[in-house]
Amino acid sequence: MLESTIAAIRPLDDAAMAAARELHGRLTKPAGSLGALEELSVRLAGLAGACPPPLPERAAVAIFAGDHGVHAQGVSPWPQEVTAQMIANFLAGGAVVNAFARQAGAAVTVVDVGVATPIPTAGTEPLDPAGGASVLDPAGSARLLDPAVPRLVDANVRPGTADLTVTAALTRDEARAAVETGVRVADELIDAGAGILLTGDMGIGNTTPAAALIAAFTGADPAAATGRGTGVDDATYQRKVDVVRAALERHRPDPTDPLGVLATVGGLEHAALAGLILGAAARRVPVLLDGVIAGSAALAAAAFAPDAVGAMVAGHRSAEPGATLALRKLALDALIDLGLRLGEGTGALLALPVVTGAVRVLHEVATFDSAGVAEK
Amino acid sequence: MLESTIAAIRPLDDAAMAAARELHGRLTKPAGSLGALEELSVRLAGLAGACPPPLPERAAVAIFAGDHGVHAQGVSPWPQEVTAQMIANFLAGGAVVNAFARQAGAAVTVVDVGVATPIPTAGTEPLDPAGGASVLDPAGSARLLDPAVPRLVDANVRPGTADLTVTAALTRDEARAAVETGVRVADELIDAGAGILLTGDMGIGNTTPAAALIAAFTGADPAAATGRGTGVDDATYQRKVDVVRAALERHRPDPTDPLGVLATVGGLEHAALAGLILGAAARRVPVLLDGVIAGSAALAAAAFAPDAVGAMVAGHRSAEPGATLALRKLALDALIDLGLRLGEGTGALLALPVVTGAVRVLHEVATFDSAGVAEK
Repeated sequence: MLESTIAAIRPLDDAAMAAARELHGRLTKPAGSLGALEELSVRLAGLAGACPPPLPERAAVAIFAGDHGVHAQGVSPWPQEVTAQMIANFLAGGAVVNAFARQAGAAVTVVDVGVATPIPTAGTEPLDPAGGASVLDPAGSARLLDPAVPRLVDANVRPGTADLTVTAALTRDEARAAVETGVRVADELIDAGAGILLTGDMGIGNTTPAAALIAAFTGADPAAATGRGTGVDDATYQRKVDVVRAALERHRPDPTDPLGVLATVGGLEHAALAGLILGAAARRVPVLLDGVIAGSAALAAAAFAPDAVGAMVAGHRSAEPGATLALRKLALDALIDLGLRLGEGTGALLALPVVTGAVRVLHEVATFDSAGVAEK
Repeated sequence: MLESTIAAIRPLDDAAMAAARELHGRLTKPAGSLGALEELSVRLAGLAGACPPPLPERAAVAIFAGDHGVHAQGVSPWPQEVTAQMIANFLAGGAVVNAFARQAGAAVTVVDVGVATPIPTAGTEPLDPAGGASVLDPAGSARLLDPAVPRLVDANVRPGTADLTVTAALTRDEARAAVETGVRVADELIDAGAGILLTGDMGIGNTTPAAALIAAFTGADPAAATGRGTGVDDATYQRKVDVVRAALERHRPDPTDPLGVLATVGGLEHAALAGLILGAAARRVPVLLDGVIAGSAALAAAAFAPDAVGAMVAGHRSAEPGATLALRKLALDALIDLGLRLGEGTGALLALPVVTGAVRVLHEVATFDSAGVAEK
């Protein structure tokens, strides 16, 4: 299934991109005056194979959540239980991602791909009874894109990764299962009508495997790829760098084998996000990337299928240094750059109106001819 | 009336800002993880004198339009008639600002403060019969904030400025009339319920007086303050720089006399925007700045009343170099930086969801305590 998804990913459509560029030249605005929005709209035309491309409506943010064995190395000041507690917060609508999703009219799907501790469900929805074997919601697709009701999907591959300083974080089969969960979530949301997917993540300690993935895929030094995550002190930061360096030296991941990289130094949510991106690209639906976790997953997706980059839109540039390295490697420019380092999908949601606006121009703006405006 | 507006502008409220900072520390997110959004929400609390500050709903973009005698110097490749033609496009809903305003749910008010040629009204609304003496809409305030119906206000002070290379662009009385029109538009929109004002502009040739204003208020060299506007060639660019330099040498505007600066080297829409900003600041309503025209007007507003900066939010950083000089002088960081150079209010509208999101966090996000999430 991973192989068929990869095989379905094709390059952008040159004719649609040319049509979008030509249309931009006729709209009532000076040529090029919308800056980066113009090229963004051209790329989305190429992805859709149509000019104008569809408006990215019925947005869906998928928050993949997992825990990390490397937490035992003291890479985060937060207790591991906070992963599960924050899922309960997402389901109750109390997190920043919920506030931003309500504002943007985006649906929130939380996918437990590897949480280690019980999710406090008091006051939240029950777990999806379909369990990990299928992420399809038994209530049918109508509810999937309801922005008012966050949804939890149980697709737990294993209760947290192993400690990547000691052994591989995951087996190859587990990594594949997580990637394929991401593909299935993408398919499900797109089948329900989502016009754009947004990446989200939750996992205490997950910036450590993200740094290892980014170092592995870009060749950057661990010190350059590692950041302070949710705000660690100098000693913890140095420990994070040492942990990332030790993991890379132990496993020597091969960047041309993305499943191997994800298995040895990755995380379950990172692998699932790579799958979500691949799934969106295969369906030619844009995927709006959040921060450093998304960046690490995007590098894996690009290693699986280089043309997947055509479906990616970089929502924001996280304050985490690894995010910048990932975007540079992918040759993507971020839409928002405001020093966010929260994750959850918050940066992607902030950027969503920019993406919609870029496409809306091609739908709604008058031409010089139709508006009776003289050209220079 | 200008004097009473200036006298009403007060500093930000320290207690409300302290309350917002304290609340941020209790919300379910790592401290500081929302980057620039946190300080933005703190400033808006200080402006409102309340924590949380009101959500910036019922947004209104005010597009001030004027023409420029300096157009005769060949500073723009566009015919002067395009100012009036674009107003007709705004009223027909066909411009980029309309597409972005519809998306953001913002009302569009076009104010003719000095258009030189007849506005083609075929298919558009009639001019406001109240004329220039009052900008109050006789249809009452209900219609003023309707996002579906762009509105034209006739407040023409004179049909375009004089050529600032030959004489003062405006008399002091004309400059004052334009500033006070801006104040009245702000009052009218706020009385109708607007929770945030956005600056917009239209005026072929208006980046030339903007560059002169920015050079006058910041002390920057004309070459540093002047850009290519809607896209002029090298020869035209050099002519623009020479024109700005000649105007500054002829008039030697005193930056501590903002009315004198606006009169000698400004424009009617620049002056009116300064008034809109002052009017918003006096009412303690945030004003979201668009690009380089807004930046030049914001410098004038800050020269009238330094505390007016507290009401300003820099929507985006225009590709025009003068915009960066203006924001630096005002110590404002832009929310969006995507190389836009269109004007109309488009950059401000793109940033509106970011402002709303920043405030929404203070309204809607759960605390660690209420959500049962452990702290580090």
